[in-house]
Amino acid sequence: MFKALALSKAYQLLEPGPVVLLATARNGIPNVMTMSWHMMVEFEPAQLACVVSSANYSFAALRTEGECVIGIPARSLATAVVKVGNSSGRDIDKFASFGLTAEPASQVAAPLVKECFANLECKVTDTALVKKYNLFVLEVLKAWVDPQQKNAKTIHHCGYGRFVVDGETIKLKSRMR
Amino acid sequence: MFKALALSKAYQLLEPGPVVLLATARNGIPNVMTMSWHMMVEFEPAQLACVVSSANYSFAALRTEGECVIGIPARSLATAVVKVGNSSGRDIDKFASFGLTAEPASQVAAPLVKECFANLECKVTDTALVKKYNLFVLEVLKAWVDPQQKNAKTIHHCGYGRFVVDGETIKLKSRMR
Repeated sequence: MFKALALSKAYQLLEPGPVVLLATARNGIPNVMTMSWHMMVEFEPAQLACVVSSANYSFAALRTEGECVIGIPARSLATAVVKVGNSSGRDIDKFASFGLTAEPASQVAAPLVKECFANLECKVTDTALVKKYNLFVLEVLKAWVDPQQKNAKTIHHCGYGRFVVDGETIKLKSRMR
Repeated sequence: MFKALALSKAYQLLEPGPVVLLATARNGIPNVMTMSWHMMVEFEPAQLACVVSSANYSFAALRTEGECVIGIPARSLATAVVKVGNSSGRDIDKFASFGLTAEPASQVAAPLVKECFANLECKVTDTALVKKYNLFVLEVLKAWVDPQQKNAKTIHHCGYGRFVVDGETIKLKSRMR
């Protein structure tokens, strides 16, 4: 169902700053959280940084397993995204509770999120700033997009459940990658 | 002209992932670059991380002076933002060349960008990952918003001069800050 995307293009999904889902698996049990604090760090290899609070149940999974999937939800998933953010994997199976489907990934034990229009399989490559800032550096090992969700509009969190949805696209002559 | 914004709200400007302008001053000479690789790291104190390529002229200014201003441009500045990104402070005075105005900041020598709807005065607080990733950790010392640019729509870079502009805003019941 998903189609592979060149790793050199993965940054184009994250650089605009959408809310993402961070999926992990600890001892084989999948979990998912909502995350906005991420940024690209390098084009190739495709590296990013993200901050996952040590208060989050996903923190231990990411720390221990060293792997995750970053799913990018379109606007149609906004309600599920908020429910994921409002609850903890300590208490419930978020996939089952919120109509999300965990699908096997190719490089990591963490699952793809079937309903997301893109999924990035990642491994943790640097934990130097985890203790101080809960900051993980990740490398994208494999990138997937759902050809059936073309031109998906993403959502961006402005705080306290207020989101701005992607509007028009403009193209300007640029030498920036 | 600018009005102070509580530092505890600064994250609401950056978390949505807009393209920003990074203003620096080296030996009193102001410069500005376009940046998309940034994320929040902590709410209070308001800390963020950003990646500034060592190939950029601004890198040395940020490294040496340890200060900057992050200006957030609205959609109306998109053309100037791209011109800033397409040129180097090595060659030209980007403020003068692209109709931008450097205004004195209160806590740092780097200037505010008058045309931006928000400006964050920042100091570099951690350089541990500069050598490896060009990653700086910054703390926001002072935040300013332009009361005349209410509900400004920001732009988000998707690569090669393609930008998505903020569209509708949705509000969902959330326990997330």
